[in-house]
Amino acid sequence: MTVNTTFLGLGAMGSALATTAWDAGHRVVAWNRTGHRAQSLRDRGVAIADSVEEAVADARTVVVCLFDDASVRDVLGPVSTALSGRSVINVTTTTPNQSRDLARWAEERGIDLLDGAIMAVPEMIGGPGSTIFYSGSATAFASHRPLLDLWAESSYVGSDPGMAALYDTAMLSGMYAMFAGFLHGAAMVGSEGVSAGEFVRRQAPFLAAMTEQLAGFAATVDEQDYLGPGQQSLRFTETALATVRQASTGQGVTDEVLEPVHDIIRRQIAAGFAEHGTARMFEEMRSAR
Amino acid sequence: MTVNTTFLGLGAMGSALATTAWDAGHRVVAWNRTGHRAQSLRDRGVAIADSVEEAVADARTVVVCLFDDASVRDVLGPVSTALSGRSVINVTTTTPNQSRDLARWAEERGIDLLDGAIMAVPEMIGGPGSTIFYSGSATAFASHRPLLDLWAESSYVGSDPGMAALYDTAMLSGMYAMFAGFLHGAAMVGSEGVSAGEFVRRQAPFLAAMTEQLAGFAATVDEQDYLGPGQQSLRFTETALATVRQASTGQGVTDEVLEPVHDIIRRQIAAGFAEHGTARMFEEMRSAR
Ligand SMILES: NC(=O)c1ccc[n+]([C@@H]2O[C@H](COP(=O)([O-])OP(=O)(O)OC[C@H]3O[C@@H](n4cnc5c(N)ncnc54)[C@H](OP(=O)(O)O)[C@@H]3O)[C@@H](O)[C@H]2O)c1
Ligand SMILES: NC(=O)c1ccc[n+]([C@@H]2O[C@H](COP(=O)([O-])OP(=O)(O)OC[C@H]3O[C@@H](n4cnc5c(N)ncnc54)[C@H](OP(=O)(O)O)[C@@H]3O)[C@@H](O)[C@H]2O)c1
Repeated sequence: MTVNTTFLGLGAMGSALATTAWDAGHRVVAWNRTGHRAQSLRDRGVAIADSVEEAVADARTVVVCLFDDASVRDVLGPVSTALSGRSVINVTTTTPNQSRDLARWAEERGIDLLDGAIMAVPEMIGGPGSTIFYSGSATAFASHRPLLDLWAESSYVGSDPGMAALYDTAMLSGMYAMFAGFLHGAAMVGSEGVSAGEFVRRQAPFLAAMTEQLAGFAATVDEQDYLGPGQQSLRFTETALATVRQASTGQGVTDEVLEPVHDIIRRQIAAGFAEHGTARMFEEMRSAR
Repeated sequence: MTVNTTFLGLGAMGSALATTAWDAGHRVVAWNRTGHRAQSLRDRGVAIADSVEEAVADARTVVVCLFDDASVRDVLGPVSTALSGRSVINVTTTTPNQSRDLARWAEERGIDLLDGAIMAVPEMIGGPGSTIFYSGSATAFASHRPLLDLWAESSYVGSDPGMAALYDTAMLSGMYAMFAGFLHGAAMVGSEGVSAGEFVRRQAPFLAAMTEQLAGFAATVDEQDYLGPGQQSLRFTETALATVRQASTGQGVTDEVLEPVHDIIRRQIAAGFAEHGTARMFEEMRSAR
């Protein structure tokens, strides 16, 4: 058995991962459901397999980068026997529970599964500023570092196979919330003819500076110290949010992005915590458990 | 008439503004509804008036920093005749429409009104990193620059008296959305015992880096170029948000912060824009008009 690395899935991301490995000198076999997407790798000299069976036949390591969990099941299911004793690195975006389920499935079949979650766009693979979280098999992580480190900063976040997906999705929550809040603010000033370009010139550095407040929130949460000094109270933030929402609707711009933030704060105030710091929203969010 | 600057309202913010002016050599007269909050200014040598009437009697300029619009009406209403011909700088937080209404009220009484919106906490007044937006009377802004520039970077954003409040509240939307998204992410990883301190070490630099994406969104919005290259589609973001929400509820953490973001995207997809860039959320938010 020659030591190949097989790539299943040659979409934008899978192609970037396979190309980076190939360019660094790895022996690569690649497969994609729709053959035409393999063309640029074929042109580079990469061996393109006609079937998943053929692709995994001589592989020590199989990198899976498909659309979602269901496509991973579709593709790996029929070749599970062939995968026994191999390492599978699944960097398809999944939920933590999907990753855990797949890891159980893999364990039952003697497959060494490493789950990955990519914090980068394809153009960033192999360049600075990208991170990939990994969880699950610690041995697969350790033995594949030379490959993984080609792609991004490799960060192992735990043997629970769901941890990589959990970190990934938790970090995306803040990002999408910030994007939505920015676009909401742009719509607010846009209602008076201010361009988004004029607005972002002020807003982007302001938000970047405000990320420095987050460490303070984190310390408050970890110490459960919601009455410690220097915090803006839930009461203060409730008033501020009411003003922002009124300003928004007064300009004819929907304020719905802020509605749940406001609701969470009001529920904590109703529970008696008006003078507690605003980081206490954390307690309301996790109390859903 | 001697040239005094009068400060009405000596809460945390009003005290910071009055103290900074006094320390820089301005003649200051100050008043607060509850006398005891004036003590630290009195100790510095500032003249404390017993009534609003007394406070404004010899003022050329009146700086108003009270709790909200209603308290401004309460305090200024009875002395409106005395204020005729003077400049009033109202830095109380208000909505754009409240600022516009107050400006109309002032104009009818011959009062030169400058509206201010403070992007700082009291400790930052007089130091670096703070900005105050002003709108309304351009002459009041120009003639008071020596005073205003003591407090913060002074930014005049338009003769529409509502503009300062609009900029302020628009910028706060992004900030509060980001804070809520961060705390949500912390609750997600917290459900597996990861500390908020461990999480923020990764999340804060990631969010700061992601603020660099905002200029691209702004350009897309200004050019209405939602099919231009390099954008993540609404379809892509819809899938990502569904995954994040599923990850959240799968960990027993409420996903409600992301619900309206997801809804806005789904409405734009239903309207036929699945392949348009994610910045198109802007159109959905402003279409409420
Ligand atoms: N692109 C990014 O910025 C980015 C960032 C982080 C993570 N990711 C994750 O990386 C993964 C791949 O993303 P991508 O950008 O490469 O997506 P993409 O360009 O849309 O490619 C999707 C790939 O999945 C394949 N596929 C879908 N359903 C399949 C099925 N039932 N059976 C077999 N193959 C199937 C497609 O094959 P066909 O060509 O035959 O359709 C294609 O190879 C996703 O989980 C994504 O969330 C992407
Ligand atoms: N603190 C900040 O970080 C910050 C940042 C940006 C903007 N602002 C804005 O600055 C303004 C003042 O904030 P602050 O932090 O100084 O608040 P604060 O410490 O709570 O002070 C509120 C002030 O308003 C007075 N007041 C309330 N209702 C009144 C009424 N009906 N009649 C007369 N006086 C009344 C209070 O007088 P008593 O002492 O008699 O109660 C006190 O002087 C607010 O609009 C706030 O949104 C504050």
